[in-house]
Amino acid sequence: MMVLITYDVRTENAEGMKRLRKVAKQCQNYGQRVQNSVFECLVDPVQFAQLRKQLEQIIDPNEDSLRYYYLGSNWKNRVEHVGAKVTYDPEGVLTV
Amino acid sequence: MMVLITYDVRTENAEGMKRLRKVAKQCQNYGQRVQNSVFECLVDPVQFAQLRKQLEQIIDPNEDSLRYYYLGSNWKNRVEHVGAKVTYDPEGVLTV
Repeated sequence: MMVLITYDVRTENAEGMKRLRKVAKQCQNYGQRVQNSVFECLVDPVQFAQLRKQLEQIIDPNEDSLRYYYLGSNWKNRVEHVGAKVTYDPEGVLTV
Repeated sequence: MMVLITYDVRTENAEGMKRLRKVAKQCQNYGQRVQNSVFECLVDPVQFAQLRKQLEQIIDPNEDSLRYYYLGSNWKNRVEHVGAKVTYDPEGVLTV
């Protein structure tokens, strides 16, 4: 399934910067970065459960947020991109 | 229809900062900010056409990007939020 993950991490101090790097790193293990704080992750339910558990252990829930958007099987028709881009197909090969 | 708009604007100089402010301002006219660079916009097709036209005139397509995610009528079931939040219902009243 395709899950879009967006996040806001408060980076006013070194702790926040550390959380931001950790969140990005985990997302990179499961998906493709499409914008700075936006990842598209093609995962099965077990993988997604692992990923969200990891992310939710990293963030400070009083300062940071995560949003998950379940785009469904028809996700390719739901997405449109304008402007500067990393072109990729998450089911295929990354082409920058 | 519910359209999720995410954006990356390169803010290395004053021009970029200006574009960022303009993009956010336009999005605020049509939807709710749910994260720093993420807006959920409940719009009809005419409104969305206006909004995207405005946004695409603001950004520098070589530096910045916009992504539109069409979440469909079942959008409420597609979204999940974790952590710090502004709680709102885009069809209702903003409650911080």
